[in-house]
Amino acid sequence: MQLEQMNLEQLQNEEKNLLSTHQQFLDSSLKLDLTRGKPSAEQLSLSEGMEGLLAGKMIHEDGTDLRNYGGANGIPEARQLGADMLGLTADEVMVGDHTSLTLMYLYLLHAYYHGVQGAETAWVKEGQVKFICLVPGYDRHFTICEELGIEMINVPFLEDGPDLEKIEALVEQDSKIKGIWCVPKYSNPTGHIYSSEAVKRIARLGLKAGANFRVMWDNAYGVHDLESSPPVLEPIMEHARAAGCEDSIIQVASTSKITFAGGGISFIGGSLNNLNHFRKRLSVMTIGPNKLNQRRHMLFLQDLDGVKALMKEHAEILSPKFKTVEKHLNEGLQGRGMGSWSSPRGGYFVSYDAPPGTAKEIIRLAGEAGVKLTPAGATFPYQNDPNDANIRLAPTFPVLEEVDQAMKVFVNCVKLACIQQQIKKKS
Amino acid sequence: MQLEQMNLEQLQNEEKNLLSTHQQFLDSSLKLDLTRGKPSAEQLSLSEGMEGLLAGKMIHEDGTDLRNYGGANGIPEARQLGADMLGLTADEVMVGDHTSLTLMYLYLLHAYYHGVQGAETAWVKEGQVKFICLVPGYDRHFTICEELGIEMINVPFLEDGPDLEKIEALVEQDSKIKGIWCVPKYSNPTGHIYSSEAVKRIARLGLKAGANFRVMWDNAYGVHDLESSPPVLEPIMEHARAAGCEDSIIQVASTSKITFAGGGISFIGGSLNNLNHFRKRLSVMTIGPNKLNQRRHMLFLQDLDGVKALMKEHAEILSPKFKTVEKHLNEGLQGRGMGSWSSPRGGYFVSYDAPPGTAKEIIRLAGEAGVKLTPAGATFPYQNDPNDANIRLAPTFPVLEEVDQAMKVFVNCVKLACIQQQIKKKS
Repeated sequence: MQLEQMNLEQLQNEEKNLLSTHQQFLDSSLKLDLTRGKPSAEQLSLSEGMEGLLAGKMIHEDGTDLRNYGGANGIPEARQLGADMLGLTADEVMVGDHTSLTLMYLYLLHAYYHGVQGAETAWVKEGQVKFICLVPGYDRHFTICEELGIEMINVPFLEDGPDLEKIEALVEQDSKIKGIWCVPKYSNPTGHIYSSEAVKRIARLGLKAGANFRVMWDNAYGVHDLESSPPVLEPIMEHARAAGCEDSIIQVASTSKITFAGGGISFIGGSLNNLNHFRKRLSVMTIGPNKLNQRRHMLFLQDLDGVKALMKEHAEILSPKFKTVEKHLNEGLQGRGMGSWSSPRGGYFVSYDAPPGTAKEIIRLAGEAGVKLTPAGATFPYQNDPNDANIRLAPTFPVLEEVDQAMKVFVNCVKLACIQQQIKKKS
Repeated sequence: MQLEQMNLEQLQNEEKNLLSTHQQFLDSSLKLDLTRGKPSAEQLSLSEGMEGLLAGKMIHEDGTDLRNYGGANGIPEARQLGADMLGLTADEVMVGDHTSLTLMYLYLLHAYYHGVQGAETAWVKEGQVKFICLVPGYDRHFTICEELGIEMINVPFLEDGPDLEKIEALVEQDSKIKGIWCVPKYSNPTGHIYSSEAVKRIARLGLKAGANFRVMWDNAYGVHDLESSPPVLEPIMEHARAAGCEDSIIQVASTSKITFAGGGISFIGGSLNNLNHFRKRLSVMTIGPNKLNQRRHMLFLQDLDGVKALMKEHAEILSPKFKTVEKHLNEGLQGRGMGSWSSPRGGYFVSYDAPPGTAKEIIRLAGEAGVKLTPAGATFPYQNDPNDANIRLAPTFPVLEEVDQAMKVFVNCVKLACIQQQIKKKS
């Protein structure tokens, strides 16, 4: 029955049942965890064959001794893979070490302090600059802005993707807005796939926003499909180029959730102009990335087809987990006015929106029942969810049975928090 | 004969002979390179056995899945190796990826913008801050200061090491001096080994210089001995701790010139206070280092004894090259007033000091004869050697025959430049 249609007695009866179930969970001393957007051990094992491939292959066919210093751009075949993943040419890609987070941080660090295209373009010279953050979003993006003192402006997602009307109006009004964070495919945590129309409009934002504006296009889940006929993301750079504002687009991706989360390779892509400036800054802190690990990866993955084949194996492991999450949410909460949730076609998260004002309580209840959830607010800048509603569920790391058990607890906690909120309202 | 004792005719005769030899070099189209402080292919091959060791060993005995995210500090046994190399305890060490340059850059970046111990300690808040640079020194240290806008003050080495009188006076006089770069063993390029007395005085500099002062102790060549009974460096942290200023010491090292220059592991060591602050800053840009590469290294190296055994093999390759450099310098230039040079007991360089005003010309002459040398001034802040004297010779990368041939050319170029300078003076 819809929550709002229940009278006080009905609510109190259901509360009693829910509390009794909750007590059973409390008694069974569970230790479950839905916080971590990490691949599972089973997924990581898919890439174990990579070790050893390098033996006798440490000198590249092009003559480069991969064991030695040098090669700021990364090895050619890895640049090509990055290019294929990001819709760029190989010379528009630099290959880094195991974390694209580092590349994003360093790009923004230098944009802020040392300029996107020379010292005179440093954002810090313009005073209090700002970034648009689509919410809910990825906490580590927000933390970078916080570290650098970049003010964050929330723009909530619309049902079908980013609110372009609002975003365009903001950048037109305020020249201190220097960028926007985007996870365009299977957005973290909402699962949105940006429509062709949205990609095209974001590609042209630079025209409205000025020369030093940057779209941080974090294509972290570009090949992380759960379906066999996955959606295709419009290539943003093509449209930016056509509009003459290709300098406004910075793209990243990595193999963290393809091979090893702690030992993959990463890619940053952008115009030659942007990369030339960034390369100079990078050269102060490194003599080049770990080319041996890049080579090992390329021997294992070969090319984009190789990546896609591997991602099918990942999907076989992940699909049942996502289906389990959805089943519990549908069966337990559908049609009851107890929140809404995403049905992602890929990526690493399910985004659940509780009735406003209940997220913290749901997380507290789940915590006492032994199910760890990402802290309330984590998906918002400054850890502040103004509605206290969003909860990010990460079902990839635990084994299937644990996902199943954790979701039973979660659904009961949602119901309990919702019922108790109604009781308070009605009494 | 001593240069200064030669009359014009003698000088002109010798010039003729030297020019004729130089012409022979010009005619033989050499392509030799003494610029690069890189290990040779032969050295790099010593560590090829590392590949493959990880197979079946990607889960650590302590339960950590090394393939996955996490572990900002690095794996325990690698921390212990870093501690043994730096004279610290394991909890005073964090293990990074393949370049200690990155750790130094990031440490100073955060010290400058975000504070060594919280935002209020950021150097940028004190206006134009400065660093003491022992000269000649390592160009990449100087580039970091230049990138951050930290003013560099040259302090020339004395015959036997750093000029502590001058350094102590400087930090007492000027509170804007926030640090000093040191390569305490086999200094780049001079080969100095800091005496116990020097280490002890540097350990106490923080007492004179204030709370936010940092000694950047780059122990890049700590185990890179050429002799079987190598000199032992006084452990600086012990003395800093005894003086109560352990926060002033930041140490780094790496395996770049032990295993793979482009794929080793690196170490940063300091007080728990310092590391706790640095770790927070690092956590914004990375979820942890590549633990797989750390593990692969530790399976290969085992411990400090393993490192030392490997370094003996390096020394066998390197000793003949250094001896060849020394032989040519001694035989060709000794007792002639044609400069002076270091006789390093380890490390990667020979430092040659030409008569003032001749370094650029020597490098030009060698260049036209097909021997690439590090550009004049490279060993000084702002690429400015006020005496136009120092030339860094790097004999590690070429094979022995090339070192021999390059040194023949070099010695002839030195003589020619010196003779021509004298001729100018006398005519």
